[in-house]
Amino acid sequence: MQPSGTFGPGSVLGILGGGQLARMMAQAAADLGVLSHIYTPERESPAAEVAGRSTIAAYDDAAALRQFVESVDLVTYEFENVPAETAMLLAARKPLQPSARALAITQDRVTEKRFIEALGLPLAPFRVVTNIDELDSSLAELGRPCVLKTSRFGYDGKGQVKISAETDAAGAYAEIGGVEAVLEGLITFTKEISVIAARGYNGEFKAYDVCENEHVDHILSVTRAPARVRTNTYEGALNAARRIADALEYVGIIAIEMFVVEEGDRETFLINEIAPRVHNSGHWTSDGAKTSQFQQHVRAICNFPLGSSARLGTIEMKNLIGDAAENWREYLAEAGAHLHLYGKRESRSGRKMGHVTRVRPDENV
Amino acid sequence: MQPSGTFGPGSVLGILGGGQLARMMAQAAADLGVLSHIYTPERESPAAEVAGRSTIAAYDDAAALRQFVESVDLVTYEFENVPAETAMLLAARKPLQPSARALAITQDRVTEKRFIEALGLPLAPFRVVTNIDELDSSLAELGRPCVLKTSRFGYDGKGQVKISAETDAAGAYAEIGGVEAVLEGLITFTKEISVIAARGYNGEFKAYDVCENEHVDHILSVTRAPARVRTNTYEGALNAARRIADALEYVGIIAIEMFVVEEGDRETFLINEIAPRVHNSGHWTSDGAKTSQFQQHVRAICNFPLGSSARLGTIEMKNLIGDAAENWREYLAEAGAHLHLYGKRESRSGRKMGHVTRVRPDENV
Repeated sequence: MQPSGTFGPGSVLGILGGGQLARMMAQAAADLGVLSHIYTPERESPAAEVAGRSTIAAYDDAAALRQFVESVDLVTYEFENVPAETAMLLAARKPLQPSARALAITQDRVTEKRFIEALGLPLAPFRVVTNIDELDSSLAELGRPCVLKTSRFGYDGKGQVKISAETDAAGAYAEIGGVEAVLEGLITFTKEISVIAARGYNGEFKAYDVCENEHVDHILSVTRAPARVRTNTYEGALNAARRIADALEYVGIIAIEMFVVEEGDRETFLINEIAPRVHNSGHWTSDGAKTSQFQQHVRAICNFPLGSSARLGTIEMKNLIGDAAENWREYLAEAGAHLHLYGKRESRSGRKMGHVTRVRPDENV
Repeated sequence: MQPSGTFGPGSVLGILGGGQLARMMAQAAADLGVLSHIYTPERESPAAEVAGRSTIAAYDDAAALRQFVESVDLVTYEFENVPAETAMLLAARKPLQPSARALAITQDRVTEKRFIEALGLPLAPFRVVTNIDELDSSLAELGRPCVLKTSRFGYDGKGQVKISAETDAAGAYAEIGGVEAVLEGLITFTKEISVIAARGYNGEFKAYDVCENEHVDHILSVTRAPARVRTNTYEGALNAARRIADALEYVGIIAIEMFVVEEGDRETFLINEIAPRVHNSGHWTSDGAKTSQFQQHVRAICNFPLGSSARLGTIEMKNLIGDAAENWREYLAEAGAHLHLYGKRESRSGRKMGHVTRVRPDENV
């Protein structure tokens, strides 16, 4: 659906999802006078705590979805695993951004990799696997070690298993549920980086500086901006992001994760995955850039002018996972630290409870 | 009531009032994981749009107030005209900050002026007026022109009338309702300034830089920080704010409005009024200081460590009143401008719809 051009202060943004990404989108929308309606199956969700209206219902509850979509002016989401029927139901009635097409491509690892491949952009070697015979032959082609990932519904390291020299392939395939999967050659990378960028309806494109990410147990732990990579890697990563966003006719914030690899003397990168949404590795922008990724997303999908993505210094964003949020008082007392808590009632191991961003002013900027 | 020391993420802050000040307090509380419960008589209030819970009831509805106060951990407010019985009912059950005493003193112009006078701080000459005879004799003492202001419930120029040479005094007194009032000598001031500062339970005091204010039709139009005043005025204003906050054993953000006057070669100031709350002339701190007045208020009343009040540049904050908010798209497109809209559905003449803050980095800071 094309932008109606009539969004503005007073418009109601429907947001699928009740977690911290939805929460920070709703907060950013409020700053621009845009109202939020949260749709989530979760009671007492972090997002509903900062929104004047919310619907608690399943993502496949057609009646609830219909009522929800009637009450809003446009719809966005905080996670790529929105069921295809849900996306179709919503997109048929109100603008859904990022689009159902962006969603369909990025929620399926196979489709996503073929899309990236078709653009001629660099990827780790991969094979599509739909049965044990294909897994065996793919392993023979790619060699071990490899990583086997479900094509759909994987996140934060869920739905993936490493296949080493001694791993039983059939057992590994059973472990991820025997569903359609992608076998990826295990990359020796020196760094993980990501590009967070916004694209508007008119094709305007604004990327934040490339940042680098440290994961612990497959969960993002620390993001630093700017990424310490060579100029050609930096520019190549930004160009790849732009080509992907353009090819998707994308509207909103897009996040692209990449691996930095060394080939002899050369440094280059491989694209790992695309997230059609605001992204944890962009949280630093709330305190470390002129416009946060959350406000930029709202601006893009509402067809407002995009803001500056300029960085305000040298940035470190640290996720507060599980017990780590118990140090909140120390972070509040620390000069230059910006604390954000998500209002989650229960701290669990591996649960993202908040983040803290440290901004060190650059000299000569 | 003393701080329980047990406030933290997950605590519920009750906020009296549903306007933009309550809204921005609730947003700031959310960033720290503190939940907000809005209490307001207004349906579809700006504050309720960003809070997970709200009560719509009159400020003197004892049953609703009792239910509200049971559901929260502490209470604050966005306006000083909270009825005394309401404050007492709440403060008897949960910590109310700023305190009922701060409220009682500042919601009554007579009490407030006597409190400031008792501290030996500078005030414009004034007389208390409770009948027409007192008005006549006070006018004879102070001379014309003067300004007659109701002792209670005045704001944004409401409840006040100027008495010039030709004004009929009895008519003027009738115009403000014939209630207890203060007659103030009309000051020839060169500037209006304000001090926004936070004081914690332990007496910790953090003031923002003094700012200067331009009013149009008695409504704040523009705030600039820092105020362009002489060093002794600057320091005197900050010292006066600290003495007032200490004398009130104040907890939270306090705002003190002052007039800058020239006496021959000297520049000095007179205290105009005290607001026991976050203040429009402190809105610049959201984009122009390390910690916004809203987060600082939440930190203070929750007994969290106070944040830095350091300024980030040379600041101009412009209120968007009535139709002025229709230029929102231009402000979004302007580099260095930070737009904030309050989500009010109806624009009316004189209604504060939002504000825009421009931050120009200081050189050599």
